[in-house]
Amino acid sequence: MTQNRRFVLRRRPQGEPVPEDFELVTESLPDLADGQFLIRNHYASLDPAMRGWMDDADSYMPPIPLGASVRASTIGVVEASKAEGFAPGQWVMGLNAIEDYSIGTVGGFTQPIDPSLVPSVTNYLSLFGAVGMTAYFGLFDVCEPQPGDTVLVSGAAGAVGSIVGQLAKIHGCKTIGIAGGAEKCRRLTERYGFDVAIDYRGKDEAALTAEIAAAAPGGVDVIFENVGGIILDAGLANLAMNARVGLCGLISEYNSEEPVGARNLWRLIVKRASIRGLLVADYVARFGEGAAKMGEWAAQGRIHIDEHIDEGIENAYSAFMRLF
Amino acid sequence: MTQNRRFVLRRRPQGEPVPEDFELVTESLPDLADGQFLIRNHYASLDPAMRGWMDDADSYMPPIPLGASVRASTIGVVEASKAEGFAPGQWVMGLNAIEDYSIGTVGGFTQPIDPSLVPSVTNYLSLFGAVGMTAYFGLFDVCEPQPGDTVLVSGAAGAVGSIVGQLAKIHGCKTIGIAGGAEKCRRLTERYGFDVAIDYRGKDEAALTAEIAAAAPGGVDVIFENVGGIILDAGLANLAMNARVGLCGLISEYNSEEPVGARNLWRLIVKRASIRGLLVADYVARFGEGAAKMGEWAAQGRIHIDEHIDEGIENAYSAFMRLF
Repeated sequence: MTQNRRFVLRRRPQGEPVPEDFELVTESLPDLADGQFLIRNHYASLDPAMRGWMDDADSYMPPIPLGASVRASTIGVVEASKAEGFAPGQWVMGLNAIEDYSIGTVGGFTQPIDPSLVPSVTNYLSLFGAVGMTAYFGLFDVCEPQPGDTVLVSGAAGAVGSIVGQLAKIHGCKTIGIAGGAEKCRRLTERYGFDVAIDYRGKDEAALTAEIAAAAPGGVDVIFENVGGIILDAGLANLAMNARVGLCGLISEYNSEEPVGARNLWRLIVKRASIRGLLVADYVARFGEGAAKMGEWAAQGRIHIDEHIDEGIENAYSAFMRLF
Repeated sequence: MTQNRRFVLRRRPQGEPVPEDFELVTESLPDLADGQFLIRNHYASLDPAMRGWMDDADSYMPPIPLGASVRASTIGVVEASKAEGFAPGQWVMGLNAIEDYSIGTVGGFTQPIDPSLVPSVTNYLSLFGAVGMTAYFGLFDVCEPQPGDTVLVSGAAGAVGSIVGQLAKIHGCKTIGIAGGAEKCRRLTERYGFDVAIDYRGKDEAALTAEIAAAAPGGVDVIFENVGGIILDAGLANLAMNARVGLCGLISEYNSEEPVGARNLWRLIVKRASIRGLLVADYVARFGEGAAKMGEWAAQGRIHIDEHIDEGIENAYSAFMRLF
């Protein structure tokens, strides 16, 4: 009988997750029921949002139950099937979990994918998956940048942020990226084409505010926010009139039990600006449109995507924690 | 020579203003230059936003200079004029200051008004002035309520909030008001027609969140925010999907040197909701439209407006502090 290693949530993390919050368990797979198929997961995407799913909070999807495998987007190959449309050998992607095998159902979140359409099948978890679609729809639909606008991206070296910066550049915007450390900042300008990179390390809100102001003397028209805390506040202090803030994530607060919060909301009044929360799930019906544009720009060499791949489900905890 | 008593900003308040931050000075009036007119101020509107004008901050208008009269909307009568269109005896309103006399200029912010059109000339500082127009455009243009929506108003017993609640009710919304104290809360339901009044006094964020949830089991579609801090956070915790937050003011933070900030911004992501800053100055060109609707509803007895009038410029400090 096939053994399934599952990376299980054992306990709800208090603040920063620790190894004891998880457990790698090995179980036998149940038999497939009609309408189900067995997915051999090859890759799981590790995303900051997963930290929120570990909390017992009312959110956009239910918390990961204790004892369940940690929810994640995965790609894999169908190994066995009692479901129409999912024959053995078919590559699929879906919202499954960090485990060797997942059970898919017809009408669930798992969809067939075609590896021949992309340079690497893993691109379905980056440029053509939730990450890329978050960047595409979050930037263009929520933030509505105009050519010539100044776009500030926090978490700019991250999976979403690095794509947002490149999309804004393609769109004719000036791009300012915030990241932690000299190496990431070098990557922002050299690889992702940001006009300015700001290293937040060792800086307080006043210093960050001054650096953004120096890079954007006329203020920032768009903020694509992944971080929150003093980084968001420094951005709010530099809003241009009628600026739009797309709120994609608040990674600085996911592991804090007492969030810093946004203390510069009054700048929204001064600048008649807005903050709008965004979630890629709202755009599933338009993924085709987003993927087509992404594919076009990628083929033209105008988007660089960096995938960091760790091998081995036993390394899931350390790989996840590298996000924070 | 005419003597002018002026309520002057002597020192920038640190946190809560104290009497020593101000001084009542008496000066002789300068002679009028061509294009100027002399206004005998009868009433000045005291607004929480004035607190922000006392700080040395980059905002939507310059700080009140030290030594200048405290800026305020006033109504008064032209006493002398070297300006076309402003004859002696003419009632005017404008952004002037807390002082017996202001000097108006043609093309400035001062406009003629007609007391015969309104029940009381003071209505030009409430329903038909910045207060009423903030409520009207802030609610309808920024928050876009739909009939049937649940609208949460903080600072609901205040000048703007009490009108917002009544406008939302006229529009067919369910209205929930937050105010401080049993008397104000009684006024919310009995006079301003709020469906539910919530007294914030003595309650922490969790208690406020639970009270709003009980009043709005399906969440709030609109928040008209005047207060900020834990009151805003409790509102954010109760957002309905695609909710709109109109950010009009943050009165809880104007006197605090270390603002509380908004710690529930992540709810914007969960509910794909937005916060938008609003300022009545953006709607000056449409004041006629707003005033016409307000006048119609007021004539039908559908809007109650309460004006609290303190007499005597020597009482300006205590009258202003009653806002907080």
